Amino acid sequence: MFSHIENGKVRMVDVSEKDVVLRIARAEGFIKLKKETIEAIKKGEVEKGNVIATAVIAGTLAVKKTSELIPMCHPIPITSVKFDYEFEEDGIKMTCEVKAFAKTGVEMEALTGVSVALLTVWDMVKSMEKDERGNYPETAIKNVRVVEKVKVPDF
Amino acid sequence: MFSHIENGKVRMVDVSEKDVVLRIARAEGFIKLKKETIEAIKKGEVEKGNVIATAVIAGTLAVKKTSELIPMCHPIPITSVKFDYEFEEDGIKMTCEVKAFAKTGVEMEALTGVSVALLTVWDMVKSMEKDERGNYPETAIKNVRVVEKVKVPDF
Amino acid sequence: MFSHIENGKVRMVDVSEKDVVLRIARAEGFIKLKKETIEAIKKGEVEKGNVIATAVIAGTLAVKKTSELIPMCHPIPITSVKFDYEFEEDGIKMTCEVKAFAKTGVEMEALTGVSVALLTVWDMVKSMEKDERGNYPETAIKNVRVVEKVKVPDF
Amino acid sequence: MFSHIENGKVRMVDVSEKDVVLRIARAEGFIKLKKETIEAIKKGEVEKGNVIATAVIAGTLAVKKTSELIPMCHPIPITSVKFDYEFEEDGIKMTCEVKAFAKTGVEMEALTGVSVALLTVWDMVKSMEKDERGNYPETAIKNVRVVEKVKVPDF
Amino acid sequence: MFSHIENGKVRMVDVSEKDVVLRIARAEGFIKLKKETIEAIKKGEVEKGNVIATAVIAGTLAVKKTSELIPMCHPIPITSVKFDYEFEEDGIKMTCEVKAFAKTGVEMEALTGVSVALLTVWDMVKSMEKDERGNYPETAIKNVRVVEKVKVPDF
Amino acid sequence: MFSHIENGKVRMVDVSEKDVVLRIARAEGFIKLKKETIEAIKKGEVEKGNVIATAVIAGTLAVKKTSELIPMCHPIPITSVKFDYEFEEDGIKMTCEVKAFAKTGVEMEALTGVSVALLTVWDMVKSMEKDERGNYPETAIKNVRVVEKVKVPDF
Repeated sequence: MFSHIENGKVRMVDVSEKDVVLRIARAEGFIKLKKETIEAIKKGEVEKGNVIATAVIAGTLAVKKTSELIPMCHPIPITSVKFDYEFEEDGIKMTCEVKAFAKTGVEMEALTGVSVALLTVWDMVKSMEKDERGNYPETAIKNVRVVEKVKVPDF
Repeated sequence: MFSHIENGKVRMVDVSEKDVVLRIARAEGFIKLKKETIEAIKKGEVEKGNVIATAVIAGTLAVKKTSELIPMCHPIPITSVKFDYEFEEDGIKMTCEVKAFAKTGVEMEALTGVSVALLTVWDMVKSMEKDERGNYPETAIKNVRVVEKVKVPDF
Repeated sequence: MFSHIENGKVRMVDVSEKDVVLRIARAEGFIKLKKETIEAIKKGEVEKGNVIATAVIAGTLAVKKTSELIPMCHPIPITSVKFDYEFEEDGIKMTCEVKAFAKTGVEMEALTGVSVALLTVWDMVKSMEKDERGNYPETAIKNVRVVEKVKVPDF
Repeated sequence: MFSHIENGKVRMVDVSEKDVVLRIARAEGFIKLKKETIEAIKKGEVEKGNVIATAVIAGTLAVKKTSELIPMCHPIPITSVKFDYEFEEDGIKMTCEVKAFAKTGVEMEALTGVSVALLTVWDMVKSMEKDERGNYPETAIKNVRVVEKVKVPDF
Repeated sequence: MFSHIENGKVRMVDVSEKDVVLRIARAEGFIKLKKETIEAIKKGEVEKGNVIATAVIAGTLAVKKTSELIPMCHPIPITSVKFDYEFEEDGIKMTCEVKAFAKTGVEMEALTGVSVALLTVWDMVKSMEKDERGNYPETAIKNVRVVEKVKVPDF
Repeated sequence: MFSHIENGKVRMVDVSEKDVVLRIARAEGFIKLKKETIEAIKKGEVEKGNVIATAVIAGTLAVKKTSELIPMCHPIPITSVKFDYEFEEDGIKMTCEVKAFAKTGVEMEALTGVSVALLTVWDMVKSMEKDERGNYPETAIKNVRVVEKVKVPDF
């Protein structure tokens, strides 16, 4: 195991010669929550404050930190970040769309944004999701995935 | 909608009066990958290098950045971070255990660690998971959740 | 000029021997805005979104980054951050209260929090405050100061 | 209140289609200090060390961190940061000029730079500005504003 | 001493008018280690885990943080980071090559990368290098220097 | 090679059960410079500004960032950072002393501080050290090492 490629080697892909084009990626993810929690978020009754705004802001900041969090990602000059959300019966679905003129795609940025936004939702409603032992029997982040990724060469 | 609690208000919970005790939390998550990708990781044949080591290191650094990423989290003096992983038939399960003597629990730290570790796995195997259009029809991060959380008051 | 103390010398105060006690500091500041901007914020009609929530979240994150921004500040384990705001006739007053059990006071944390919150208000309403040349003839951040600082030795 | 635009929505302006041109912005601000403190800074007699150099360096680093501090700011490839300062009778005025070839203006960068520089001045002279209760009856940061902002399309 | 140039003045070089060309820099450095430590690294027997992979990842992240660590460095959109290492009889030599299309050279990035990689090697093998008093009589980082720096104007 | 310990495993040492005591570490390092450069620094004639102050400030900030730069380092509440420097015939020697009440030693903090301070010296004098091809035939960072490390259990 781990014999073919030398194990100490980890490398950033060299994108020096790739073209700078408009890159767009959209990722989504879902957080499973209790019905009461969803109601409280909708009614603006969560003690810690505005859940969705906090999640969107945390996610936007995380998009800009992607190359600091994911070791082999390249720094990318983001030109747009847009979040959407949808209340479903048993949780919230969030979507994050990222744009940049760059030499490489922005799917890791969109995935990082949506992941941190969902983690922030969790943090904001911790007291409502916990059981009496302080555990979270039902809460879970699910199905974080890339919905679409495009390159717009003729922009 | 959003009328009961004023919408501009977002607040960090005041933990000043809580006791400093040993807190332990363990979170896990799963990334769905192609069989060929899993084989390549196991054999150490992934072009970008050592996938698991990179994921564990990124996850460890992310645990320490939690209060910077999740806006209402308190800074916590982490004393231990430990990752485990398991190859399953259709993906990899990662677990992250965090310890700290603190006034509040470390579940957000463990969840952040496991999320960033799984995002890093994705980044390391992008070229193997992409289809010809550059999209990821099968890859997904699933079931990120808290496995266990304890407080050890008599440590 | 600059002769008495050697100029290359800059030093962090050594607080190793000071007691860990509960420290509380409250800072405030004011941003002068156009009447129309204040109305738009109050009515939730600002294009970029929820101004106050964004400011409070940015300010809270900045409090936690103080020792990274102000070179000679010590890292401090913040236990509480609380923002308040008040609409005045020609602007918004924001207040930031910070608590920590620490060997040194938290006034720089409160001042940093309120400064970044006010800068964020500015950023959110840029399009409404700009004149036709893209300048800001009226906008200004004013009177950032420490309102109160206490040490609670017998907590 | 907060009804017209949905409150959870916060968004970064999409600047993808804007032109990359040379952007210059200059911001200034003032910190009110005791006469003795001003004298000590001028004479290089402040215990913690070189006040102005520390402020300029902290401000320069802060300019580069703007998109990390102000949630909806875009990351910008800064090409120049220049600080100036002037001793006045009751304080110090600092100016920060920022340049970049970018799709959006750099006024938030200049404002952030000058704010952090002034906060750093405060931190360096804390012991001289404090009263016997540890409070700051006279110190204040005043009139942080944009002095000039230009776009140089034909550079 | 320190009289010719005013001491509070520190300034970032204005690179606004310089051309964007491909910049490449390569730096190297050496860490002196005990023979037993080198053997343990080679055999993969170091308790804390994979020394080289951790050093390379830390170094890669550090390259991307250079403008945050070195106050007067410009933010640079790195397109490639590549590390190499060589076991010598009394230590390890590491090399870091950085590429970017930028208005200024990337030698500080390469030097920062190699320095942090070597510091990380040290951290990973601390327990093997320490003497019984917890000191490091033999360990040292040596000869960190720029091996080559080129500008490729006609790329 | 790399067979005994599984290669994906990297782990932070668990310091949960160690005692909190006063830890002090002192590291030093040397940067080799041209005689003219040393003279210019001494006379305060370096174009970019105050070399030593910039190096000390960068080094102090780096000490506080150690656990962010070195992946397996624990976050440590630093209580003191002190730099010293000495002009030698062919370069500058810098020393960095760090103190903290912590569960683990602060030698990596002192080493990181001195390394970043020396890298900053280099950056400040680049234009004087470069040859006509933009290379640095003489400049080098040498002999970064731990001078002393103590634990003060009975503080």
